[in-house]
Amino acid sequence: MKNIFLIGATGSLGREALKVIEDNKDKFLLIGATGYNNYKELISICRKFNPPYAGIRREFIPIMKDNCSGDTAVFDVDKRLSEILEEADPDLTLFLSSGINAAKAVKYLLNKDKRIGIANKETVIAGGELIFKKENLKNIIPIDSEPSAIFQCLLGENKESVNRLIITASGGPFWEKREAEFPFITPEDALKHPNWKMGKKITIDSATMANKAFEIIESHFLFDIPYEKIEAVVHRESIIHSLVEFTDGNVKALMSKTRMYYPLQFAMSYPERVKTHIGYLNLADTGKLTFYPMDRKKFPAFDIILHFAKEGGNRLPLLVAADEIAVESFLERKIKFTDIPYVIEKTVSSVPFSEGGSLEDIEETYKLGIIKAENIIRRIIL
Amino acid sequence: MKNIFLIGATGSLGREALKVIEDNKDKFLLIGATGYNNYKELISICRKFNPPYAGIRREFIPIMKDNCSGDTAVFDVDKRLSEILEEADPDLTLFLSSGINAAKAVKYLLNKDKRIGIANKETVIAGGELIFKKENLKNIIPIDSEPSAIFQCLLGENKESVNRLIITASGGPFWEKREAEFPFITPEDALKHPNWKMGKKITIDSATMANKAFEIIESHFLFDIPYEKIEAVVHRESIIHSLVEFTDGNVKALMSKTRMYYPLQFAMSYPERVKTHIGYLNLADTGKLTFYPMDRKKFPAFDIILHFAKEGGNRLPLLVAADEIAVESFLERKIKFTDIPYVIEKTVSSVPFSEGGSLEDIEETYKLGIIKAENIIRRIIL
Repeated sequence: MKNIFLIGATGSLGREALKVIEDNKDKFLLIGATGYNNYKELISICRKFNPPYAGIRREFIPIMKDNCSGDTAVFDVDKRLSEILEEADPDLTLFLSSGINAAKAVKYLLNKDKRIGIANKETVIAGGELIFKKENLKNIIPIDSEPSAIFQCLLGENKESVNRLIITASGGPFWEKREAEFPFITPEDALKHPNWKMGKKITIDSATMANKAFEIIESHFLFDIPYEKIEAVVHRESIIHSLVEFTDGNVKALMSKTRMYYPLQFAMSYPERVKTHIGYLNLADTGKLTFYPMDRKKFPAFDIILHFAKEGGNRLPLLVAADEIAVESFLERKIKFTDIPYVIEKTVSSVPFSEGGSLEDIEETYKLGIIKAENIIRRIIL
Repeated sequence: MKNIFLIGATGSLGREALKVIEDNKDKFLLIGATGYNNYKELISICRKFNPPYAGIRREFIPIMKDNCSGDTAVFDVDKRLSEILEEADPDLTLFLSSGINAAKAVKYLLNKDKRIGIANKETVIAGGELIFKKENLKNIIPIDSEPSAIFQCLLGENKESVNRLIITASGGPFWEKREAEFPFITPEDALKHPNWKMGKKITIDSATMANKAFEIIESHFLFDIPYEKIEAVVHRESIIHSLVEFTDGNVKALMSKTRMYYPLQFAMSYPERVKTHIGYLNLADTGKLTFYPMDRKKFPAFDIILHFAKEGGNRLPLLVAADEIAVESFLERKIKFTDIPYVIEKTVSSVPFSEGGSLEDIEETYKLGIIKAENIIRRIIL
């Protein structure tokens, strides 16, 4: 029995993770779950799974306590997460929330030599240089479908044999749209992802292809592979989740149906594989898999983000902050779709380069990025 | 430095293997090569690589001796192969010839706990039950592109996690041909394989899709996986060489450009991977990969062969003999393309079932199959 603690249990990934646990009751036990604002969902999780720990924002603690059984200790997720993780001592902690809030708990667990699964790109990017160091990688299982695919393709292989990591990109909803129409893209248009059902932020990041640049950064840190050896290829069907090309010209690909259930299930069962409850891919039904080179002109966010990422240091938390605010402002109809890369570029270049520093420094830089991005957006609106 | 002995160095696979050795002079050393009738090619191999041993049919020994340097000991490949292999003691012996002649040497090396690479389907099929036993598999590296792909996909994985092996089939030159035209197929038509340059026998086996059934049998023995868990899917481009579906719904695929150089290079370098000299696959250039279910009606050899293979015993050497004679007779224009599956079916069912027995028994059954098949063909011609 593996004891599992879910950070971000109330989001779309959390729901899939809970289904994996439910489908494998004999193997996985939920010993803790956290939410942020969505106390209703967390209450229903507590009622169903009765975990010993449930974390939520402070203001929702009383209503949680009123609605959960006495078996569940309700705690302030902003203040006490690391402390509770120490007490609960899970076999595996999955970070499924977004944002850099989780960085402290990730760092704490890795320092304690504890195994984590991570779907939180922001933490990997902003905290990459500080937290995701070579010596910690053995305890990290990626959950995003692309790095999970790479992780699986690397099983039984030597890192020295890797020639390239090839990250697949669906191309998002606008792959075939004419560039001239891009300024008129609405949030409703951008929220229609062709293959994946995901949260709003990541769906917009897929539409701008910022997401693919973020996954390249993520893979750079999670697999300790230089940026020159990581590429993206557009693969419209999202059946191949990523590939590893070896020095000898052989290429391994990992495929599954497009549901985050699969990488979540893998992260929980690793180093074993369980029997899935949601069925298998049928290649003959799939019919075809198509590939195209990246279009860097129509999707400028990709190159802008990678340019800064390669500089490292404070660029990494600034990128996270800038994209977060740009996407939020687009969703609030304050800026155009085509302003997103502009805001990212202006935000990061408005701050002089410096090294990343401590976790506190990273958090400060991130906050600075938020303010800078908001200022730039204010100027666009004026 | 790895000492390599090539059985069947003068065929199309042999030429690719020699190119791998030439491209990696610092890693691989040719210490022996055998041919059968093609003494001219073997002489040029001896002149270029100067191996300590060269094996050929008895009648060509004098001409070989006259044309090779005194450094190379020329031997009778039919009589002395096992003995020479003992003397030469190679790190790796690659069986690249076709036919069941090599079975004795394969058995000898596996009994001595020596590592072999095998592209010789006939030996694996006919000798599967006797030679390719579970305890020997650790010393066997497959070379056919399909089982090589599966071998690579299984690295770092547990056999218990395998749900299905999925063998890809190009569909051959007649995938889109109307069934009504099949009786009029000529050897010239059938020798035009869309993706691979191979020997004549295997090219015809690809056209009838007998080859795919043989690869399923091969995979059954080489990976100790039951027939129910092995399937074929048509994949026209031959870029994905095969796939492994795991119990958790994740699927690993192995790809490369369509050249036997890649699996040969892998077999020689395993457990390491070298840097290839012949370039990398470009997925965006490839454009698309297509998949279709097998067409068992148009290609009846597939089901006929698998039906008998599952019975095991003497069916296995009989299948090898029947297909060999059927293909040969088709190439000699004695029978029609559509007679090939008929000859296989009639040959095998003309002999009562018995267990496989010893190597001598297998060779006897094989010879019986040759005679039976020839008789059946004589009756067709009459």
